[in-house]
Amino acid sequence: MSFTKLDDLGRKLEALEHAQSMLGVDEAVQMPSGGGDKRAEAMSMLAGMYHEMAAVPYIAEWIADARKEPLSDKQKTALNEFERNYINRTCLSSDFVRRQVSARVRSEQLWRELRSSGNWKDFLPAFEGIVNLAREEAQLRAEVLKLSPYDALIEQFDPGSRAADITPVFTELKTFLKKFIPEALAAQNERRAKHPARPFNAPFPIEKQKALGEAMMKAIGFDFTHGRLDVSHHPFCGGVPSDVRMTTRYTTSEFLSSLMGILHETGHGLYEQGLPKEWAHWPMGKARGMAAHESQSLFVEKQLARNPAFWEWAMPVVREYLGAGAIAGWDLDDILAHVHRIGRGLIRVDADEATYPLHVILRYEIEQQLIGGKLGAKDVPEIWDAKMREYLHLSTIDNPKDGPMQDVHWPSGAFGYFPSYTLGAMMAAQQWAAVERENPKVSDDIRKGNFSGVNDWRRKNIWSKASTLSTPELMHAATGEALQAKYFTEHLEKRYLA
Amino acid sequence: MSFTKLDDLGRKLEALEHAQSMLGVDEAVQMPSGGGDKRAEAMSMLAGMYHEMAAVPYIAEWIADARKEPLSDKQKTALNEFERNYINRTCLSSDFVRRQVSARVRSEQLWRELRSSGNWKDFLPAFEGIVNLAREEAQLRAEVLKLSPYDALIEQFDPGSRAADITPVFTELKTFLKKFIPEALAAQNERRAKHPARPFNAPFPIEKQKALGEAMMKAIGFDFTHGRLDVSHHPFCGGVPSDVRMTTRYTTSEFLSSLMGILHETGHGLYEQGLPKEWAHWPMGKARGMAAHESQSLFVEKQLARNPAFWEWAMPVVREYLGAGAIAGWDLDDILAHVHRIGRGLIRVDADEATYPLHVILRYEIEQQLIGGKLGAKDVPEIWDAKMREYLHLSTIDNPKDGPMQDVHWPSGAFGYFPSYTLGAMMAAQQWAAVERENPKVSDDIRKGNFSGVNDWRRKNIWSKASTLSTPELMHAATGEALQAKYFTEHLEKRYLA
Repeated sequence: MSFTKLDDLGRKLEALEHAQSMLGVDEAVQMPSGGGDKRAEAMSMLAGMYHEMAAVPYIAEWIADARKEPLSDKQKTALNEFERNYINRTCLSSDFVRRQVSARVRSEQLWRELRSSGNWKDFLPAFEGIVNLAREEAQLRAEVLKLSPYDALIEQFDPGSRAADITPVFTELKTFLKKFIPEALAAQNERRAKHPARPFNAPFPIEKQKALGEAMMKAIGFDFTHGRLDVSHHPFCGGVPSDVRMTTRYTTSEFLSSLMGILHETGHGLYEQGLPKEWAHWPMGKARGMAAHESQSLFVEKQLARNPAFWEWAMPVVREYLGAGAIAGWDLDDILAHVHRIGRGLIRVDADEATYPLHVILRYEIEQQLIGGKLGAKDVPEIWDAKMREYLHLSTIDNPKDGPMQDVHWPSGAFGYFPSYTLGAMMAAQQWAAVERENPKVSDDIRKGNFSGVNDWRRKNIWSKASTLSTPELMHAATGEALQAKYFTEHLEKRYLA
Repeated sequence: MSFTKLDDLGRKLEALEHAQSMLGVDEAVQMPSGGGDKRAEAMSMLAGMYHEMAAVPYIAEWIADARKEPLSDKQKTALNEFERNYINRTCLSSDFVRRQVSARVRSEQLWRELRSSGNWKDFLPAFEGIVNLAREEAQLRAEVLKLSPYDALIEQFDPGSRAADITPVFTELKTFLKKFIPEALAAQNERRAKHPARPFNAPFPIEKQKALGEAMMKAIGFDFTHGRLDVSHHPFCGGVPSDVRMTTRYTTSEFLSSLMGILHETGHGLYEQGLPKEWAHWPMGKARGMAAHESQSLFVEKQLARNPAFWEWAMPVVREYLGAGAIAGWDLDDILAHVHRIGRGLIRVDADEATYPLHVILRYEIEQQLIGGKLGAKDVPEIWDAKMREYLHLSTIDNPKDGPMQDVHWPSGAFGYFPSYTLGAMMAAQQWAAVERENPKVSDDIRKGNFSGVNDWRRKNIWSKASTLSTPELMHAATGEALQAKYFTEHLEKRYLA
């Protein structure tokens, strides 16, 4: 049976993924510095073995033969997703991939070297090479996938999402935000005038913050028999669905940045833990993509954990774990003053939920032009500055470090990735609206620290679906409609203007 | 170039070994319980891939072709060791290996289930199967390797060691110990009568013990940029030479068991860290085998860390890390009363350095007869009891749990492994004697906490040699003579009778 051969291959690939994933976690969490060279060598060898195994031509024959076998509907879906993966993996020649990997590694290294000094001029030649290769890749993929070049790149991160659908939603959102942000900032200033934000009663010992974070993870549904929380320089959610490894980093001067980070990663972790186990070794059994994943982390972070109802439950929990003095005398408004703080800034990763989409839309608009050849790599700083001034009233023209040099994505060759962040944020808001439609009292549950209802909804509509549907299909099946900007904009209005 | 093909293959195999080793470490140190099933699946898949890659028939052609290529002496040695490995890996049929693995897994599981109740009767049928398969394996290997069946098994753990060389040394040692142990116990009783052992001033907090252990590891030469110390249920030294992962476990009631365990594992760790890096991906670049490895751990634990000179340096270090009260008022004899405690016991892993060899020789004698067919599996408890009574004046006839059911080796099918422990102990003593011949003042160095001399000697004579020599050749090259019992017996006399 060819289907069985694919099933066996899936188990081998799963074992290699397991090894790669866990070696990556160990590298960030446990590995001493001197272990890096051999680790990098091992990881690159394993990646090579994976590609060799996953891209051999006879897999195409197995897929074709399996189509003639009597398969259940589930097996047919599994086969389709396997084929989609196989086509995406094999539509670039080995020679092209080698050239691209080598250029990406050099460009990313150069970027790490030049970023802190904002040396765009010396970075530009490498970046031009990366853009040219990305255009070439987009063209090669577009021909095989019968998509536009930019859509062919988005497809790598977010199967089924197309610029033609994204652009109108992003445009609506952009128009909204340009008007909304000044209003929200004015409202915030009014609130602050009446009720200044209290400073944190620091220090907050790391051990206590860890206990608090773990208690909240557990309350929100994270299964510690299939996962753990560690420390790393850059927080992430890694590992495998049966053993989800989350990390955070702590500062003792306040507790919210680590806690919110933990809750964000917990959203990713719950998605992984909620994937259907019997299909774990098939592409169909894995999480749908970047936007879907981000929708789950943002659902927990923004829809749940920045919800005022959440803090009615959470404030006593904070006091229990950090001590009564931690937020002594604080009321709900005091904590929300920190949890809901917004402001314009240059850096995407530091942005709040209101300004973040403008950082993303700016990149989305620029990378579309870059891939489409309408913009040259050398012109990025000017257009970045112009859009930044238009969207956030800030200039980066003399500051490429905090402008186009701030993110690793482009220097490492990832184009088509950025929209996922804001698609995820909108999906999360739309999912929350659907949950509220189904259970108008859901905020009362949150207020009591009861998350089983929202988890049941997400398990049924998102997690258990894994990769059986494209991202837009997944959203439509879960919420009854295509992705809308309005749930996200209504969410912002309710939270920041009310 | 076929040599280059083997070199490339070596790098792939090294990456898989790296993954397997680190996944094993993670399993013992970090993994949550629910991750076990998928981890086991991944490990078994990776082991299968490793075997597939390392045992394909065309490797034999590559080896033969490489012999015709112009090779340096080092490359020739590398090729020889590659071939030795390949032959040992491929001299059993896949069908036989499958049968054996399945029997071993079942037998080991059954042993885990029945050991605590000492249910030998229900374990016997599985054990008979294991013994039969071990005999079959020994026969199959013996034909290919042109060795006696038992030697063919020893060869898997200790390349080059032969029963014909081991037996006379073990016999001399056994004769010595049967006379020595009563004398040493009498001497110990006399010392104790004059100077009773002081109790530990417990508790010793784990964090402080960890700091002490790490300080001693560092002093002894362990490189923390290429390794670390963690906690696991069973202490081990794992990882890879560029990233050595050691573990210990702590009890707060005393500090010596963990510290001595750490120092033992540090000996393994130094060997791994000292292997030549450029050959890390060839069998020639790996540690020589079980006896050589044990010689390095026992060198650190018994020759260095139980040396009275060591404690002149170490007592202030203990006070520095555990606090002045930890061994308040203790003098050298007080600590040595604990460090040099000996006694007869039933359990090998709990035995001291004087009685340990008798546990090993007992097993060596029995397993030779088992493999040779001169003894049936069912007769093991009787002969075990008879030898135990003769060697250590203890009976196990009504207590198979603490007799032949105490070790995992036989239930898991490892025959020919046990002699390594005592070969290692004798090798360590002989190496120490060679170091002392070269530098008669070496104990003065130890007294000052200066271990660079002993490490230089071992780096030059043991670590850097990796697997370029067989175990007996390695010993001969390092110490100028074949393995002798006398250095070990003199060491015991000096330490316990003086």
